[in-house]
Amino acid sequence: MGLNKITDTADTICAISTAPGTGGIAVIRISGSQAIQCANRIWKGKQLEKANSHTAHLGYIINPETTEPIDQCVATVFHAPGTFTGEDIVELSVHGSQWIQQEIIRQLINGKQCRLAEPGEFTRRAFANGKIDLSQAEAVADVIASTTQASHRLAMSQMRGEYSNQIESLRNSLLELASLLELELDFSEEDVEFASREKLKQIANKTQQTIQQMTDTFTVGKAIKEGIPVAIIGEPNTGKSTLLNNIVGDNRAIVSDIPGTTRDTIEDTTIIHGIQYRFIDTAGLRNTSDVVESLGIERSINTLKKATVAIWLITAQTTQTQANQMAQIIEQNIHPDTKLIICINKTDINKTQTPPALNINKQYTTLPISALTGQGIDRLKSKLHELTINNNLPQPHMIVTNARHYEALCNANESIKNVLQGLEATLSGDFIAQDVRQTIHHLGEITGTITTPDILATIFSRFCIGK
Amino acid sequence: MGLNKITDTADTICAISTAPGTGGIAVIRISGSQAIQCANRIWKGKQLEKANSHTAHLGYIINPETTEPIDQCVATVFHAPGTFTGEDIVELSVHGSQWIQQEIIRQLINGKQCRLAEPGEFTRRAFANGKIDLSQAEAVADVIASTTQASHRLAMSQMRGEYSNQIESLRNSLLELASLLELELDFSEEDVEFASREKLKQIANKTQQTIQQMTDTFTVGKAIKEGIPVAIIGEPNTGKSTLLNNIVGDNRAIVSDIPGTTRDTIEDTTIIHGIQYRFIDTAGLRNTSDVVESLGIERSINTLKKATVAIWLITAQTTQTQANQMAQIIEQNIHPDTKLIICINKTDINKTQTPPALNINKQYTTLPISALTGQGIDRLKSKLHELTINNNLPQPHMIVTNARHYEALCNANESIKNVLQGLEATLSGDFIAQDVRQTIHHLGEITGTITTPDILATIFSRFCIGK
Repeated sequence: MGLNKITDTADTICAISTAPGTGGIAVIRISGSQAIQCANRIWKGKQLEKANSHTAHLGYIINPETTEPIDQCVATVFHAPGTFTGEDIVELSVHGSQWIQQEIIRQLINGKQCRLAEPGEFTRRAFANGKIDLSQAEAVADVIASTTQASHRLAMSQMRGEYSNQIESLRNSLLELASLLELELDFSEEDVEFASREKLKQIANKTQQTIQQMTDTFTVGKAIKEGIPVAIIGEPNTGKSTLLNNIVGDNRAIVSDIPGTTRDTIEDTTIIHGIQYRFIDTAGLRNTSDVVESLGIERSINTLKKATVAIWLITAQTTQTQANQMAQIIEQNIHPDTKLIICINKTDINKTQTPPALNINKQYTTLPISALTGQGIDRLKSKLHELTINNNLPQPHMIVTNARHYEALCNANESIKNVLQGLEATLSGDFIAQDVRQTIHHLGEITGTITTPDILATIFSRFCIGK
Repeated sequence: MGLNKITDTADTICAISTAPGTGGIAVIRISGSQAIQCANRIWKGKQLEKANSHTAHLGYIINPETTEPIDQCVATVFHAPGTFTGEDIVELSVHGSQWIQQEIIRQLINGKQCRLAEPGEFTRRAFANGKIDLSQAEAVADVIASTTQASHRLAMSQMRGEYSNQIESLRNSLLELASLLELELDFSEEDVEFASREKLKQIANKTQQTIQQMTDTFTVGKAIKEGIPVAIIGEPNTGKSTLLNNIVGDNRAIVSDIPGTTRDTIEDTTIIHGIQYRFIDTAGLRNTSDVVESLGIERSINTLKKATVAIWLITAQTTQTQANQMAQIIEQNIHPDTKLIICINKTDINKTQTPPALNINKQYTTLPISALTGQGIDRLKSKLHELTINNNLPQPHMIVTNARHYEALCNANESIKNVLQGLEATLSGDFIAQDVRQTIHHLGEITGTITTPDILATIFSRFCIGK
């Protein structure tokens, strides 16, 4: 079993499929042609070989050498091909002690009829056996990782194949286009035109528009999947931390520590209308000549550059000079697409004083708030939602959340544009057909019609073991 | 639903039964008379009401209001009474995303036909419905918590009812005794003796001996369940940390951080011959007049007092004065039952020098070791095992691991001793029968024949939710 063992689908595989740790119960999954024999070897109870598919049986897991019982267990038998992997599967539902889980895996592997599954190997087999396509397989990992309603909805749609169907329908249009063109080539000496150029243009145009629409959703798709970055900026004592605490409050996201995020900038997440927002407190944003401090500022400016929304906090105590300085930094660094909200904070204590004038060209929304009392916070949340999601999200099957798909769609977009140009320039059919084939190729990469072992290895290595 | 809701077995209950966190799959369990209807309400697929018992079905979990799919799922249906709880059970095997797990529980509870289960409520229902007795119910929690082969073996034996059978056979002997005595009472005026006093003495004697044997195992039972405490003592630089690292090494126990243990004393665990040992490095053990340091010493002395084994490390560099001081501290504080091993460390570098004389009356074993090279460590491990477990463990069904059982058995022992004294003093049958009944009562507390809501609440509150 070397580097290629994952491709060896002749092996029977096993793994703990539930979350690591101690729980009431844990599930050990065995898949492959020897799955039932493997389970039977450590089983005392009704013979699993005689069990009907999709039936559950109470029995004991035993050490086959000493016959000592390891656990009481419910074994559920699933016969190929009507299973998740398309192979025979046995699921052992055991007590969730770590010792039991490890001991059963050890006993299974000791029998030498199965080995421990690689990460994502069950799902990879489902793909290899044609139970799901590649984008559905990827969606399994996304479904498991999703922490918000919105990200879950996109992953579910993709897992159910709605997204694949969308890609397939694009491929089918193009296959029709290609076959019409290629038919022409076969009869080229007879100068027959099977499809009017207008008809071909129509098909190509419509396909290009749909591909374009899909690539355009990637920004919002990525934001829904990973959370929408919001930079909070402002001088010290304008109430940034209070605002953060008030927004995040009880509605804290399930996964608050995002792996790989540096904690030098304070980051916290919350869910607003089912969408995750990542708030980044950019502590050090101001003009300075101090070299050390300017390092912190550089980091803050990078945060500002990458944010989808920037919230600038000022109060009646903010001086005109400070306000002008900050306006300048924002104008120099904010991304043109980033939305700016200026919150005039501390409305509870500054009822008569007025904040400084806002000398800034960038378009913005102002909102009076009190981070302390919570006044205006709901309006701020609504505004965040309005500026980012805008309540007119495309249908889930149109939204691209996966960088690999985005790249393939961009490539497909280039190819289909070449098709359109070729038709416009009345190039000969064989040139155009080549670009159509190229477009089909790129779309096929998404669903896995076209794939390589490298791509598969990359995709499934991101999975957890047991899935 | 007030304080008594756990006793309200008319409710249908639901909970996530697998370990908390994100995994490949998670299992949600529903139990009660409405279990199947509850599941059906959020289910799209074959009607679960029509499913046979012990069958698994692929379908979707949906939001019943919007019909939006929440997850693809395998639902397994179990009909009462042949289930763990004795009630109808549906197990939903879903993708292990935290969002999905929480959303499904939310949807189930929203239907108002079921509520979230209390800790241990599934097992409590199994007890209430006569599927298992109380000591078996307690063993379920022990099975889940066990981290070593030995602790697992005891818990499994208890869960399978071998331990309960032992208690029951004692109760049966006593019930026979009681009925013979009570029959005598009914015919007391006729001065009939249905059973010879010798026969009664024999039964009582045998029962008392077995109860005594069982209470005697509690020390070893507790040690197997919780780990055997070993105090490591010695002056600084005698190699205590090196020894700890060498013993613990690769064979570190699964649960190394024992909850509730203060980390002021360094503690680490390892498994030797399937038994868990807890090594406590008692850093501050020496004579001192420093008040602050003496606080640390007090803690170390307490560790020494509670240890099952003390390992005292000396080297050729240890002075005679130091050795005498330490010997004095040990003799003053060590428990009479605690075994003492004196390890002469650094044998690798001190080949010619001799360690100080050991002026100590307490019985001990000496072992030359090199904590650095590992020389002698295997012998030390064997010695630890020999001094504690001694390779002649009683049968699992005879070993008491539970403090509640220990207390009940001690009480039973007192009562049965009273029976024996009464028989010796030829007291009248009604006095003796009272003590026999008392013994039966205490044994019944173990298996739950006799119980109170308070006892049950205490027992099941230690369970995790979902079990």
